[in-house]
Order: sequence, then structure tokens, then C-alpha cells
Amino acid sequence: MNDIAMKPVCLVIGAGAGIGGNVAKRFAEADYHAVLCRRSDEDGLNNMIEAIENDGGTASGFLLNAIDENSIEERVAAVESDIGPIEVVVYNLGAQIGDRALQDTSYKAFEMGWRLGTFGLFRLASAACPFMESRGKGTILVTSATAAVRGNAGQHSHAAAMGGRRMLCQTLNAELSSKGIHVAHIIIDGAVDAPDTLGKMLGPERFQQLRETRGMEHDGLLLPAKIAETYFHVAQQHRSAWTFEIDMRSFSDRPWWNH
Amino acid sequence: MNDIAMKPVCLVIGAGAGIGGNVAKRFAEADYHAVLCRRSDEDGLNNMIEAIENDGGTASGFLLNAIDENSIEERVAAVESDIGPIEVVVYNLGAQIGDRALQDTSYKAFEMGWRLGTFGLFRLASAACPFMESRGKGTILVTSATAAVRGNAGQHSHAAAMGGRRMLCQTLNAELSSKGIHVAHIIIDGAVDAPDTLGKMLGPERFQQLRETRGMEHDGLLLPAKIAETYFHVAQQHRSAWTFEIDMRSFSDRPWWNH
Amino acid sequence: MNDIAMKPVCLVIGAGAGIGGNVAKRFAEADYHAVLCRRSDEDGLNNMIEAIENDGGTASGFLLNAIDENSIEERVAAVESDIGPIEVVVYNLGAQIGDRALQDTSYKAFEMGWRLGTFGLFRLASAACPFMESRGKGTILVTSATAAVRGNAGQHSHAAAMGGRRMLCQTLNAELSSKGIHVAHIIIDGAVDAPDTLGKMLGPERFQQLRETRGMEHDGLLLPAKIAETYFHVAQQHRSAWTFEIDMRSFSDRPWWNH
Amino acid sequence: MNDIAMKPVCLVIGAGAGIGGNVAKRFAEADYHAVLCRRSDEDGLNNMIEAIENDGGTASGFLLNAIDENSIEERVAAVESDIGPIEVVVYNLGAQIGDRALQDTSYKAFEMGWRLGTFGLFRLASAACPFMESRGKGTILVTSATAAVRGNAGQHSHAAAMGGRRMLCQTLNAELSSKGIHVAHIIIDGAVDAPDTLGKMLGPERFQQLRETRGMEHDGLLLPAKIAETYFHVAQQHRSAWTFEIDMRSFSDRPWWNH
Repeated sequence: MNDIAMKPVCLVIGAGAGIGGNVAKRFAEADYHAVLCRRSDEDGLNNMIEAIENDGGTASGFLLNAIDENSIEERVAAVESDIGPIEVVVYNLGAQIGDRALQDTSYKAFEMGWRLGTFGLFRLASAACPFMESRGKGTILVTSATAAVRGNAGQHSHAAAMGGRRMLCQTLNAELSSKGIHVAHIIIDGAVDAPDTLGKMLGPERFQQLRETRGMEHDGLLLPAKIAETYFHVAQQHRSAWTFEIDMRSFSDRPWWNH
Repeated sequence: MNDIAMKPVCLVIGAGAGIGGNVAKRFAEADYHAVLCRRSDEDGLNNMIEAIENDGGTASGFLLNAIDENSIEERVAAVESDIGPIEVVVYNLGAQIGDRALQDTSYKAFEMGWRLGTFGLFRLASAACPFMESRGKGTILVTSATAAVRGNAGQHSHAAAMGGRRMLCQTLNAELSSKGIHVAHIIIDGAVDAPDTLGKMLGPERFQQLRETRGMEHDGLLLPAKIAETYFHVAQQHRSAWTFEIDMRSFSDRPWWNH
Repeated sequence: MNDIAMKPVCLVIGAGAGIGGNVAKRFAEADYHAVLCRRSDEDGLNNMIEAIENDGGTASGFLLNAIDENSIEERVAAVESDIGPIEVVVYNLGAQIGDRALQDTSYKAFEMGWRLGTFGLFRLASAACPFMESRGKGTILVTSATAAVRGNAGQHSHAAAMGGRRMLCQTLNAELSSKGIHVAHIIIDGAVDAPDTLGKMLGPERFQQLRETRGMEHDGLLLPAKIAETYFHVAQQHRSAWTFEIDMRSFSDRPWWNH
Repeated sequence: MNDIAMKPVCLVIGAGAGIGGNVAKRFAEADYHAVLCRRSDEDGLNNMIEAIENDGGTASGFLLNAIDENSIEERVAAVESDIGPIEVVVYNLGAQIGDRALQDTSYKAFEMGWRLGTFGLFRLASAACPFMESRGKGTILVTSATAAVRGNAGQHSHAAAMGGRRMLCQTLNAELSSKGIHVAHIIIDGAVDAPDTLGKMLGPERFQQLRETRGMEHDGLLLPAKIAETYFHVAQQHRSAWTFEIDMRSFSDRPWWNH
């Protein structure tokens, strides 16, 4: 416990087996205490923590439904009081529900997109920033998506949520940067090799097929462990040379502006 | 009444004395039946309708609180059944609450921004598009703001709402354009000479002062009657040459990307 | 001649049978004296002038190779001294050479792209702006392309030229707007039904085929006469509500950011 | 010599005491052989090479005037034949000439901006890519500027050159990415603490003053050694997670989209 208490904390909201879990792992390797939060799958959560500990790191895990009132706020407060100072927070909740025509997009689905895609980040920033401001430093890494920069057919809920996320990140940065808080908006412009999100959306067979064709042969899926290297780098940038926005995609994929 | 029934309808959500009212007036001059909806000020609403009728046009007016459940949906349905086919709909509700630091932006204010800035447009499109699709034509003009393309300090609620609005417009366009429905995202990049919005935000004295200095001498405020000309033009574009995005500002003002 | 002398001039650099010629025609209908400049095809040029005159307008025509030293500069000076004040100038020279791989793009082709796509506009602005500034008004309409906002495979020369064009337009606007000179960057995001450019690139048979399929049935090609309506509208905007950037495409086409 | 021959080469075009020299140094620390090219100041060049060698690295240096015909092309060929395979090439030539009004921007200055800002990169890519393609890998890091994404008053030459540079980078990426060549467009959105560029533009006294006020106290100038860390990171990204565009600025500075 003493050891943990002296480590800076990297808190990950949305720590599945894709980007979130790998980012937690990467920071734990660099002697951060990783706090992993995810909505469900306690076994998966425990496995990730165990893996981190087996590598010599330390980590804690919590089930957290970001939709629930005060869930994010209470977790931030508890981590700060019980574990240690949150130096880095990663908002990694997606809001992708697949392509749906306007008439097939319910008000509930549209609102859910906003709650996960935009409002949750606002709540997290509202909860974590007073702690960061009081220490004069902190890093907020926000996973974002192609839909943050262009709306495509069927993406009504997702694009509205992500467009809001990007502009929210810009307002956060405009207020917080000079206070020593680094906000980064990271555009993941392609499919990620992530069993908990892409895998669930496609189903195990199609996911495996995609991995074997587009993934393995061509590195055509973004590998989350590789993405995590860049998250870590951005968080380590010297304050004279901070990045706000960065995009990432596979070498064999096309950027969103090409086709 | 017969005359009205044969006119195409231009429905304006957010028809105050600024852009909304002037757009309604402009379409009424071109033989649309204007339907003006605004949250409050029945007298102001009646005055605008009277002015349109004095010019030889026709118009109807309704008080409508866009936040209320079903308010937009029922108005669309009632206009379609009682007045005529909605050929043009203008979403002109703002969500500007002035600059507020993160800690001074309540969850309620943030959610209100989304309800007016993003969700209301989604509800309007959901309600109006089935009618437009069945006729194979229609126009959705969306007033937008600088905050849709860049988040500035203190604009947490507004920028998140407008960023969502812009990406929503792109998804609507991606789905609806080829069905004959013209979506246009109009970026008003400057202060508008509008008593119902800027006037109320500044108070009568500061507003009058601003008009006399920046406004009258330099045309430094966007004149809503002039803006309305461009709204009308965009709605009249031939379908082989549609505009999705257009910006507007005073000649004496700086675009958002300059300073 | 007296009549002409009293008319404002609309000077079009790149007045073929597509956008340029139609814009000239549209301004002539509104009582501008149109000055049409194009590189070759004197017969085509004369036909366009005759057509304008048959419609009751006035126009002059000149062959002009924009690559030649002083060609643009001398034409501007001659129009100002011999015909009348240039109120509107349209830069409509393209630099599209089709898709070519990097190794197939010669230095000469790359430089030619810049000379037509970027430098020619700089020369035109340098020549025309002193006249416009002295009168405290003027309009510079710049035809631009998708390649100004995203570079696609094979577009090395074209995209570099158009990206330079767009940024040049922004610098011109930043300096000239408050002096009463309206700069507009018009993004033509699709194929134009233009025999002198698209027609020549495709050859007569493929062009006719494209017109009959994508064009006529679906209005899938931008019709230059319809584009010209928007050029004219932008030039007539009141100075309190000027547009800098506007995009245009067919309703049945996809915007550059979708695929 | 044997050691050098086995090292991958990092070739820097524009290796002054700012970004270029520091990037060369950073790659040399990671066991690349650094090849530094700059226009003038042979002593400065030799000092940088000596410093790299004192740190245990290897480096070569050449004076190179990028404007000269074949200067870049011959250097690329000579490095490939005499030193080793160019794995990373950094194009770090600026084209900033300070703010100049349109009438004070000569054709020569405008063309010089293009030659250094756009054409030089095209020549470098044309020369280096055949080698990289034949090996199926390579990295092209391009230093860019705020002017690549927005044109400001007085930046006619610079913004046109940088806008062309950005679109050229996108076309290069569109063609080369799937061939294993990583193109990155790095937007340096602020003043760099660089004696050879900012220092010369301001003069020694004003530069020292700026360093002492904005720089030292607030890290308000981008420190080139810190920038170099990110250049190096981008070049090391796994091909499943490549970055095309990234921005950088000091924490105490405002992004270009804010003011």
C-alpha cells in the first residue's frame, strides 16, 4: 500500500481488452498505479489487473456504469482519497451503435450516445480538474473517433456525440492548458483489434475472420498495445511542446478524408 | 385559407426578431406561408405575423418550448395536417449561455445546451423527414455558430452542443441528400444585430451602444435581414449545385481562424 | 461605348463554356459588363460574347495565357483604363491534370500546377487590388476544388496548388475584407458539366455518356449555369453578412468527407 | 565506416540549431546515422556534428541550398550510395518571411515561398521514395506551421506555401502509406526557441528578451529538444497505428483556433 500511495495514478474510464486496458498496462509498466474501470465483466477486469501485477506493476479495478448518476464523480473522489493523485485520466468510452437510418435511431439511442460520448467526459473533467488544478498539473487523454471530424450515413447518434466530444475537448484545453493540465484529443481513424468492442459488434466468427485477413496479414486493424505507446508518449510530452490533436490509423488503411 | 393551403410552408423553429423572424419574412415575400415558432413573447410573435401580412404575405405563429416533450413533433404534424406541406424548415435555436468556467458550468446547463443545440434538431429532423421523403423534396436550414468549428474558453456547453449539431447535419446530409432533401449548415461567425438574443444578453443599453459603434458605422454586426437573403438563396439552389456549408460574418470582423 | 463605360465590370479569368462563361453570362444579365478571358478557342469566345449580346448584355473577350509574364497584369490594367472599373473578378483557372503517381508527376507538371493554381491568383490579386482599394470596394470570387481541402492519391500537383490557393484566399481576406474587398473561396466538390474541361479530359464520347447517365437522369453533374447563380448571390451579399467559404455539389453526389 | 554503413540513416534537410538539429541529435542517440544539411554556417554545422559524436553518435554534414537545381536530388543519391539507406527523412525548411502586406509581397518572395515551402518537399519525396519503395519502408517527417491550416494577414507567401505543403503531404500519404512509407505532417503551432530562425528574425536582443520572459518563466517557446522527442516517437510508431497529423504548442500558448 505504501508503494502504491507514492505512485501517480492513471485512471482509465473504459478499460476493456482494447485501447483502455492496454493503456492502463502501459502506464503501469512506467510505474503509474493503474485504476481500471469498466461497466461489466468482473473476471475480465481481474485478469487484466493480475496481468499487470504479474508484470511487476500495480493496479486496481472497479466496475462502473458511466451512465449512473455520480458513478464517475464518486470514483474520482475515492481514487483521490484512497489510492493517490490522479495524474493521468483516460476517457475511453465509445458510443458507436453501428449504422442506423434516421428513422431507426430512437431518441433513447441518440441520448445514450450523448451521455456516453459527450456528457460523461464533461462529468469526468468536472470531477477531476479541481484536483489537477490544485496540483498545477494533470493529463486528460480522450479517445475519439472518425465521427468526431465527419458525419457519415447512419451515424446520427455517434457523430453528434463525437462532434460534441471534440469541441468539448477544445474548450477544456482553452481553459486548462495554461493551468498545467494537458488535454489531448486522439482520433482513432480505423477499426481496432479489440475483442470487447469490435469483437462484440461483429460476433466471434466474423471478428476472427477479420483479424486473420485484414488484421494479421496487413496490420490492417489498429493494435491497441501499439496505440497505447502513443497515449503514453503524449502524456510524457514536455509542457513546452504539447499535442492537442493527433490521428492514428493502420498503414494499410485510408484516412477518413480519402476514398 | 385556400390560398394558404396551396402555398409551400416555411417552418421556423426559433423565430425571434433576429435571424428566425427575418428568414420567415423573406420566405413569405417569396410566397411561402411562414410558420413562426418561438418560446415566449406572444406580442412580439403577433407583431411579426402582422408585419408579414401587411407586406402581402401569409403567416401563422405558435408559442413552442422546444425543451418540452413532443412540442416540436406535434407542431410539425399539425402544420402538415392543418396548414400545408413543409417545404423548408429552419432550425434557429441557439444554446449560447455566455462564457462560463468549467466549475461554473452546471450539469443542468450542459444538458440544456445539448437539448436545444443538438437534440432539438434531431427531433425536428425525425419528425419532418418522413413527410419530406414521401414527397421526394425538402430543405433543412440549420443556423450554426463559430462554436461548431472551434471550442473557445468558457464555451463548454455551447461548443459541445454546436459541435454535435454540425456532425449531426453531416449525417443527415449523408442520408437525405440523395433523397432530395437539402441540408445546409450555416455558420454565423459573428454577433448578430438581434434584440431578442444579443440584446437580451447585453441588456438594452450595452446593446444600443454596440449597435451605434460597431454596428452602424462599420456594419460590424450581422444584419439579420441580410443573412435571410442567403438563407433564401441556399433554399432555392438547383439540386445539381447544393451547398452544405457556408459561413457568414461582417466585412469588418475577423473570421474565427484569424486573430 | 458610353453605356459600357458606366457599367461595373465583371472580369473572368478562365471563361470557357463551363463555370467561367456562365458566370460571365449571369453578371451580364444583371447589367455588368462582362470581360471574358480564356487561353484559346477564339471562336468559342466570340460565340459566348455574341450570346451575351443577343440577351441584351454587353461583353468583351480576350485570349489570355495566364502563364505568360504580365498577361494577367496587363489585362487588368487595360480593362480598368479602357472599359471600366472592375467590380468583380472571377479566378476560374483549374490545374487538374488527372491522377498521376508521384514518379509520373514531372517537376514541370508540378510547377505548372502552382503557376495556374496559386501564383496566377496572387498575380491577379496584386494587379486588381490597388484599383479596388482605391474605390473601397470589390469582389474576388475564386473557384476552388475538393483538392483544396484534402489531398487524394495522384493529386500531387493539383492538391498542392489548390491547398496553396485556399490559404492564399484566407490571407487575402484577412487583409482586404475590412477594406471593403470581398474574397470568396468556392469549393466545387464534384464534376461539372463543362465541355471545355471535363469534356476535353474525357473525350467527347465518354463525356456524352457521363452526361446521359449520371448527368441528365440524376443531375449528378454540377450544372454551370446553376453554379453561376450562387457566384452571383455571393457577390451581391451585403457587407454585414459576407461569405468567405461555400461548398457545392450535386444532391446525388457524396461530399468529399463521406464515402 | 563499417559501423556507419550498418546504421539506418536519418537525413535532415534544414538542420539548424532549432528543430532540425535537435531531431538529428535525437535520432543519432538512437543509433541512426544523422545526415545534417543546411544552407550556410559551416561552423555551426560542424559544431552540431561534433556534439553528436561527443555523445557517442555518428553524423555527417553538408551545406545544401535547397533552391539550387538538383541540390536535394544529388544529396539523396549520394547519401544512399555513400553512407547508407535513408530510413527517415525530415523536411524542415521554413518559408516564413514575416508579415508583409499584399503590395509589399514581391512575385519573387511569393515564388521563393513555394520553392522552399512546397516544391522542395516534392523534390525530396520524388528523390527519396524510389529507394524507400524498393525497401518497402521509410518515414517522411514534415515540419509544418500554423499557416498550413489558416492564412493570416500578411502571410500571403508563407500560407500559400504551407497550405500547398499540407495538401502535398496528404497526397504523398495517400499513395505511399500502403507501400510502407510513413508520412507525417507536424504542425508547429507557436514560436520555437531557435536561434537560427526566430533568433535571426528578431535579432539577438529581442530574441534574448523573449526567451527570458515568455520562454524561461512560462515555457512559452517550444523547446526544439522536446519537439524532437515527438518526431522520434512518430517515426517509431508501429505500422498498425501510424499518425499522419499532429500539432504541438506550448502549454502557455493558445492554439491557432483560439483567441
